[in-house]
Amino acid sequence: MNEKIAETIQKIEPVNFKLMEKAQEKLDNLTKPQGSLGKLEDFARRIVGISGTLSPAIKRKVIFVMAGDHGVAEEEVTFQMVYNFIRGGAGINVLARHMGAEILVVDMGVVKDFPLEESIIRKKIAYGTNNMAKGPAMSKDKAERAIIAGIEVFESELSKKGIDIIGLGEMGIANTTPSSAIVACLTESKVEEVTGRGTGIDEDQFKNKIRVIKQAIEVNHPDPEDGLDVLSKVGGFEIGGLAGCILAAASHQVPIVIDGFISCASALIAIKLAPLVKDYIFASHNSVEKGHKIALKYIGKIPMFDLGMRLGEGTGAALGISFIEAGVKILSQMASFADAGVDKNSR
Amino acid sequence: MNEKIAETIQKIEPVNFKLMEKAQEKLDNLTKPQGSLGKLEDFARRIVGISGTLSPAIKRKVIFVMAGDHGVAEEEVTFQMVYNFIRGGAGINVLARHMGAEILVVDMGVVKDFPLEESIIRKKIAYGTNNMAKGPAMSKDKAERAIIAGIEVFESELSKKGIDIIGLGEMGIANTTPSSAIVACLTESKVEEVTGRGTGIDEDQFKNKIRVIKQAIEVNHPDPEDGLDVLSKVGGFEIGGLAGCILAAASHQVPIVIDGFISCASALIAIKLAPLVKDYIFASHNSVEKGHKIALKYIGKIPMFDLGMRLGEGTGAALGISFIEAGVKILSQMASFADAGVDKNSR
Repeated sequence: MNEKIAETIQKIEPVNFKLMEKAQEKLDNLTKPQGSLGKLEDFARRIVGISGTLSPAIKRKVIFVMAGDHGVAEEEVTFQMVYNFIRGGAGINVLARHMGAEILVVDMGVVKDFPLEESIIRKKIAYGTNNMAKGPAMSKDKAERAIIAGIEVFESELSKKGIDIIGLGEMGIANTTPSSAIVACLTESKVEEVTGRGTGIDEDQFKNKIRVIKQAIEVNHPDPEDGLDVLSKVGGFEIGGLAGCILAAASHQVPIVIDGFISCASALIAIKLAPLVKDYIFASHNSVEKGHKIALKYIGKIPMFDLGMRLGEGTGAALGISFIEAGVKILSQMASFADAGVDKNSR
Repeated sequence: MNEKIAETIQKIEPVNFKLMEKAQEKLDNLTKPQGSLGKLEDFARRIVGISGTLSPAIKRKVIFVMAGDHGVAEEEVTFQMVYNFIRGGAGINVLARHMGAEILVVDMGVVKDFPLEESIIRKKIAYGTNNMAKGPAMSKDKAERAIIAGIEVFESELSKKGIDIIGLGEMGIANTTPSSAIVACLTESKVEEVTGRGTGIDEDQFKNKIRVIKQAIEVNHPDPEDGLDVLSKVGGFEIGGLAGCILAAASHQVPIVIDGFISCASALIAIKLAPLVKDYIFASHNSVEKGHKIALKYIGKIPMFDLGMRLGEGTGAALGISFIEAGVKILSQMASFADAGVDKNSR
């Protein structure tokens, strides 16, 4: 395996379970019945375990929106939508502003180039993947370069102003297709079980989608024990970039909030490469996309909410970050029974 | 019925369904697949219907936290916790700050008086309710005065700086007991079906709680067709105040976000008094408290999320307001296909 990737993986430590117990003690002394803030308390406790401090603070929130095109699909719209991100008019722009997060848009493999004056992070591995129904979506080398690009984007931002939590977002027309293929391989599920209608296709297109995924798996024989092999054979550049982001964030003790089906597929790859990253990951929403539930169950994550969303872009992750931040503020800002002079036993 | 209450009820109009259709048209032209933001789109559409404008904006968010004591319970802790609200150290203070809402704390019937220098809204109807297991919790007159107090608190704040959305919160040790009684009466459910363990009681206390509620209903015979009768016989001052807030908000076209079981019980009373308010109400979270699900189902509301919370105070409502605001911003800030130059048919 490439040295940079191996180094990053080696730096990932288990989360600090001992400190999580201390966090729970602190939570139990706040002016509320024990456990009455439910998952908000879980979020706070886990952030303590990840960050390694009993007084974590979430200041800089960054959503990495990675874009790439796919050999199996029409292509112009990814480019147009990424432009929309840059201009601030997309769903993820609105929701990130709403909860005070920054967005970093990364071109991992869009079929057209963005003019130099546009502010986008340029990590293009190629102009779209190859058609995975006919052969590997990308070479092993390109798969590694996609992961490395994700690591570099994260580390470059981290070195600038620090990062306290990241959200994952993506844009890539047809990228539920490689995601279904990845989830089918890694969870060893039937293609039909993990394939949905994406952002909207009819019955014929749906049947064709299943056929393409089955063919891609048959033609390429991805090895379910090898995350890199799966990424190269049936993945996408944006999916590889997100996997790199996850590895890098975990290696720097930064929590990761995944969005819907595609970012969850990238999480499966990252976990296959480095099982310890699992404890750094939070699932935000339950997307409409069918395979998402199976993928979440496979990695043992329960989503925070289900608003019937299926847009991607990081929109669910944005809302999820806000919940986690709420939990962390409970831990750091609520008065204890002693502070407030409230009788602990009667509360 | 009291004139002020009758006047308020008369001012409540049906929401504007026609404008909601226009809102959906606008949503369908934004740069996303139709319907792909799920409930965020519902929230936006409903806010349009409630506010009567296609370009709603949520600027001032206010959470009314109403406190009262109950003749069936120990009492000092309500007072102490309200002090904690005033000092800014409670869970609701933290979450309201997190999402940019103001809190207004109202003494509706706490057993002790707050010193004059403390900033609390003083609407005390009495020093706690009577023991409902022995007779009415309050007189009809006091029930009306509690509702009127809620109307006045809302209208006084509205006249100062305007209000775009309200959340409901409460504090009153043992107030899940009257709430279970209210929900049992109004939904005509068995007491056992709508009674839970509140913020934490043991098996013996739980059996006693059920016994008290059954006795209160037997002794008082509240009329399930008369919200005011139910409030006076088995209610609470904070519950009446919240019901008044709901009526007032709806009469001024302001959306209402309920919290957990207690505020839902107040919503049942408000809806019984004025069925049209139902469409002005949003359910935020699914609380752990058992009767909450039954009460929500009865008023046809699906909660936005379930984080296993059971604190009350308005903590769930605070998070819920943030989701509604997200939906409204989607409507007002996202680019349309025409704005962004994105091909509508391929998205």
